[in-house]
Amino acid sequence: MNERELIERIRSSAGRTPLVLGIGDDCAIFRPRAGEDLLFTTDQMIEGAHFTRSLPAEAAGERALARSLSDIAAMGGEPRLCTVALAVPGNQARWIERFFTGLLRLAKRTGTALAGGDLARSEKIYCDVMVCGAVPRGQALRRDGARPGDAIFVSGRLGKSWTRPIRPRLALGVALRGRATSCIDLSDGLSLDLHRLCAASGAAAEINRVPVAPQSTLERALHGGEDYELLFTLPPHGMPPRGSWRIGTIVRGAPGAVNFHGRPLPPRGYDHFTRRP
Amino acid sequence: MNERELIERIRSSAGRTPLVLGIGDDCAIFRPRAGEDLLFTTDQMIEGAHFTRSLPAEAAGERALARSLSDIAAMGGEPRLCTVALAVPGNQARWIERFFTGLLRLAKRTGTALAGGDLARSEKIYCDVMVCGAVPRGQALRRDGARPGDAIFVSGRLGKSWTRPIRPRLALGVALRGRATSCIDLSDGLSLDLHRLCAASGAAAEINRVPVAPQSTLERALHGGEDYELLFTLPPHGMPPRGSWRIGTIVRGAPGAVNFHGRPLPPRGYDHFTRRP
Repeated sequence: MNERELIERIRSSAGRTPLVLGIGDDCAIFRPRAGEDLLFTTDQMIEGAHFTRSLPAEAAGERALARSLSDIAAMGGEPRLCTVALAVPGNQARWIERFFTGLLRLAKRTGTALAGGDLARSEKIYCDVMVCGAVPRGQALRRDGARPGDAIFVSGRLGKSWTRPIRPRLALGVALRGRATSCIDLSDGLSLDLHRLCAASGAAAEINRVPVAPQSTLERALHGGEDYELLFTLPPHGMPPRGSWRIGTIVRGAPGAVNFHGRPLPPRGYDHFTRRP
Repeated sequence: MNERELIERIRSSAGRTPLVLGIGDDCAIFRPRAGEDLLFTTDQMIEGAHFTRSLPAEAAGERALARSLSDIAAMGGEPRLCTVALAVPGNQARWIERFFTGLLRLAKRTGTALAGGDLARSEKIYCDVMVCGAVPRGQALRRDGARPGDAIFVSGRLGKSWTRPIRPRLALGVALRGRATSCIDLSDGLSLDLHRLCAASGAAAEINRVPVAPQSTLERALHGGEDYELLFTLPPHGMPPRGSWRIGTIVRGAPGAVNFHGRPLPPRGYDHFTRRP
């Protein structure tokens, strides 16, 4: 199977999309709706760093898209389209097909059109998924709006296994528009992501209760990555969405400082550049 | 230098952008202008496949962006923003900085805002650049509009060395809006890209004259890739832009068939999946 045949197969399985022009030209054409801001995010998934070949190809494809969709959820957006760059070793047309089967299944479920991509060869599997989402003008959730007195929540138990499928919290993100004062997705661990939210907001945090996933540990819930839950803040008397857990309060203090049960909690989550997983 | 410090350095060198929100949150926020369609394209650049370490880091960064800008040019678009995914081995913060120096220089010159990115580690250097461009509604150039009788042009001599800097033909693409019946960029070689344009348009082509770059050969001009000139068609009596070369005519025939001096020219350009460079 050559590149053209493979792309044709992916194109036909992508189905009908709301794009003006989909896969097959130099660019895809997308017509934005009036009154919307667009959100852009991109995430890499690299064999050996973010996954191993023990992960089935369909699950790898789904996961590659889900990680970027989680960023769209964290901004309160609805996904509109994605582009997918994929490099694989040797003659792995079947692996690529199954990767796209998994990716496109999640894309259809979430209304994300496949707008284009790029296929190449490499020694290890490498992929990069860019997602463009939309939000009513001025209503995107950001990480810099938390204020002292705000209550801090997470959308689920933390420290989950990275081998489970990711369920991007898109519906919750939409529901938090106009309600949450700040929001971020938990991709690199609670301690690091809460530190980032507080640093951006120029505030500090006191947390005292963290919901731990079954068969996990408090250590993993505090510092493990790849949870893909939302971490968000509500004004002091804001009504939390069902299923969310209050973990603490935003306080005055050194920007980015986080205390857990009164003791400093260092940001020990995953830094992609200084540490290996 | 850790990921945060490195990103902070890249962010500060990105300068002011027209984005509502740039690097630093889960997504960037972009507000589209009324009456515009948006174009999306993504291109990978992989060490060993598309470049070697003999290419200076600045040149690699410029080239990575230029390849995607060339796709925007081929659709008649103006670039608005890009996202950059980059994976590099070991502790190569200096290389990354110089890569972004080159990339951002071209980004500024072409009005492309750096909207976000992702840094990771890998054994070989890998990057993927997504560019979003804009075009007045309905005015994007496509590869499927060539009709028998149309004249075929290229925007410059072909067969150039891949080590030269790429100059994406953005101004020409804009000038061709409403004039060209079809357009594609020459990234994989004239024989393959003209075949693609003809196949999409349901037509054939007769070419009889190909401008060859100095110190190059006709063989390279016909089949070599990485020229990044535009290949476009004009109606029979259309006035060609200055500096473009007429190479032939669109004719009735098997969709995608190309003749050179009356003999079939097989599409022998670069197929990223079946062949290595």
